[in-house]
Amino acid sequence: MHDFPRINPIRLLDDLKTLRSFGANGPGVVRLSLSPVDMEARRWLTKRMTQAGLDATIDGVGTVFGRSRKSGPALVIGSHTDTQPTGGWLDGALGVICGLEIARALDECAATRDFAIDVASWIDEEGTFSSFLGSRSFVGDAVDASLQHARNREGLLLGDALAQAGLANVPRVMLDRKRQRAYLEPHIEQGGRLESSGKSIGVVTTIVGIREFQLRFTGQRNHAGTTPMAIRRDAGAALVALIARIDDAFNRLADADTVWTVGRIDLDPGSFSVVPGKAEMYLQFRDANAERLHAMESALITLVDEWNARHAVRAELIACEGPEEPVAMDAALQQHVAQAAESIAPGQWTPMPSGASHDAQVIAHHIPACMLFVPSIGGVSHDFIEDTAQAHIVLGCEVAARATARIVDALRRET
Amino acid sequence: MHDFPRINPIRLLDDLKTLRSFGANGPGVVRLSLSPVDMEARRWLTKRMTQAGLDATIDGVGTVFGRSRKSGPALVIGSHTDTQPTGGWLDGALGVICGLEIARALDECAATRDFAIDVASWIDEEGTFSSFLGSRSFVGDAVDASLQHARNREGLLLGDALAQAGLANVPRVMLDRKRQRAYLEPHIEQGGRLESSGKSIGVVTTIVGIREFQLRFTGQRNHAGTTPMAIRRDAGAALVALIARIDDAFNRLADADTVWTVGRIDLDPGSFSVVPGKAEMYLQFRDANAERLHAMESALITLVDEWNARHAVRAELIACEGPEEPVAMDAALQQHVAQAAESIAPGQWTPMPSGASHDAQVIAHHIPACMLFVPSIGGVSHDFIEDTAQAHIVLGCEVAARATARIVDALRRET
Repeated sequence: MHDFPRINPIRLLDDLKTLRSFGANGPGVVRLSLSPVDMEARRWLTKRMTQAGLDATIDGVGTVFGRSRKSGPALVIGSHTDTQPTGGWLDGALGVICGLEIARALDECAATRDFAIDVASWIDEEGTFSSFLGSRSFVGDAVDASLQHARNREGLLLGDALAQAGLANVPRVMLDRKRQRAYLEPHIEQGGRLESSGKSIGVVTTIVGIREFQLRFTGQRNHAGTTPMAIRRDAGAALVALIARIDDAFNRLADADTVWTVGRIDLDPGSFSVVPGKAEMYLQFRDANAERLHAMESALITLVDEWNARHAVRAELIACEGPEEPVAMDAALQQHVAQAAESIAPGQWTPMPSGASHDAQVIAHHIPACMLFVPSIGGVSHDFIEDTAQAHIVLGCEVAARATARIVDALRRET
Repeated sequence: MHDFPRINPIRLLDDLKTLRSFGANGPGVVRLSLSPVDMEARRWLTKRMTQAGLDATIDGVGTVFGRSRKSGPALVIGSHTDTQPTGGWLDGALGVICGLEIARALDECAATRDFAIDVASWIDEEGTFSSFLGSRSFVGDAVDASLQHARNREGLLLGDALAQAGLANVPRVMLDRKRQRAYLEPHIEQGGRLESSGKSIGVVTTIVGIREFQLRFTGQRNHAGTTPMAIRRDAGAALVALIARIDDAFNRLADADTVWTVGRIDLDPGSFSVVPGKAEMYLQFRDANAERLHAMESALITLVDEWNARHAVRAELIACEGPEEPVAMDAALQQHVAQAAESIAPGQWTPMPSGASHDAQVIAHHIPACMLFVPSIGGVSHDFIEDTAQAHIVLGCEVAARATARIVDALRRET
């Protein structure tokens, strides 16, 4: 029995490595939601949670939930153990195993042994069937459409996959706001910001909002030799010209954290000798500030309108997925994480937005939520070579454990 | 018997319509080189040439050649009757049937009945197997590699196609420079320049040269949410930026006839949420001036070198097909065509470059050659809806007949 919660680094890393073995593929992992190997991993995780003293089950959508038997206000620590089709070993897994280790560590410390820590592995954060299915189900968001119609890439219905996994008539774990009062999600950064700034811990301020648009251009397909530049209506040239204007406009609106990406361009018909008659592009932009996102969207609409007023090639703006608004992390929880980081790793932490989406953004609409990042080597994620230095994994779990103790202590004082 | 050569518009249009029936597909034509329907058309054409008093044969590569029985210097009038996979009814066919009609018209006129007019339909201008095969074979360019290795899209070898057409051991028609002293190719414009300037006849000054390049960009694939703009190496953004610089440089070098085209762009992997790690594009440019083409090529190389010296995304320039140098039409022949046009349609003609390639560019390296264009409706070609006003078809043939009389008269005076 410790006087203050001390995580066991060997036990933490051993559990991470065991989880990695389910679906291992070279250094990476292929563990798609509800696949046989994913269900194997979920049964192993349930067993480890049970061994840690939690009441652990796989619920009706596949979420593994380990409920503390302790009374009083609970902190939920979680993330996801499903992966991308070519996934890394830490994305999601880190947060779940950290939660498990923190539940054990607090149980082994006299000062915190009564603290209630629930641990969750939310199903399908990565969207094999339906993104954030587990966290959405937990907080009571509507998931009926997903349950009835969502399919994976092979065309398997979510409902059939759940039945095959033996979860057809299993109840779903639901948020109890009276008891479950806050949420913490440790995660790898998935970017290169911590590494490039030499920091070890990121305290997440906001999960950015996202806008996705398709831009379609309709001009006139023509012979590339016989059509003078002056009479062309080149859809590809229009697309390239509008990208430059979008860059200018967004650069004026952006701060250092604003990002925008042209991820795809198609010209039709796509040959040397034909002036493209049609062109399409994907545009995505993200920002932590809802007003900036709206300003960017307005600027985009204005640019397209101005373009159409002045040019013979017609541009069409089509809103896709979303929009997703930015989600702020709870200020008091951020404070606890920051103070835990400062006490363990003074000067080695930084506040930062999350550029990627996480289950925390779903849960934050219902209870106070926060996130903590550790550095990704080379900024790489969603790739077999994704990795984080062991020292950073351990440090991240230590900071999360210290933050957990502070948060639950505060929750217990409130009640 | 006329006093001056008069073409018969009904006969001209009837022959064009009959030729159209071989491979007709809606308003367009599918008549790929050496296909059964193409061979049928060639046999019909041979018969029509024979009826016009020409010694007509299908030669060992498939060219239909109608040789005049008259003595003295000959003008060859020709083009091609093969089509693109989705071809128009006039591209190529117009020039061949005009040649046939002109041979007939001159034969029916007292002043020109002794003039020698050969008529040719060169095989495979469109490159079903090997572009310009017939004209290259005629002038003695090396075609052995094509005969041995060229295949169509279905994988059929040219040699096998010729054998199937019964042409395995048939001799090839070869240029006799002592007798065949000049070449005239009437053709549709395939662009919108005549239409937009309100002219009816184009007198071709030059067939433009062509350069084709692929540009490949190698950056770093990254998460589009977690990778700040400042540390990205976005291959797609590099491509778009370099296109703007190429446009600037080419605009400075160009005249009104210079054209350049980005016909294809590919970003890898091509999704909303991934910063492209690789990008590729096709760039083609054409000009009638060899020095300008070289200057554009030098500017392009310099831009790529400058880019690589200053940016983390690497650009690579890969030369493709060609290069094709511009080919000037013979000045004296241009003069004859222009004077014929001015006498029949005063003020309705214009000198202009040909932005597209033609058999004339092959033949011009061996004997004086010239071309005459008629307007394409909407500038459309290589498409089922390709068309030219009947009045323009007839006018073009009248001008070509008048030019033919002038040219052969001049050739006869020289000897």
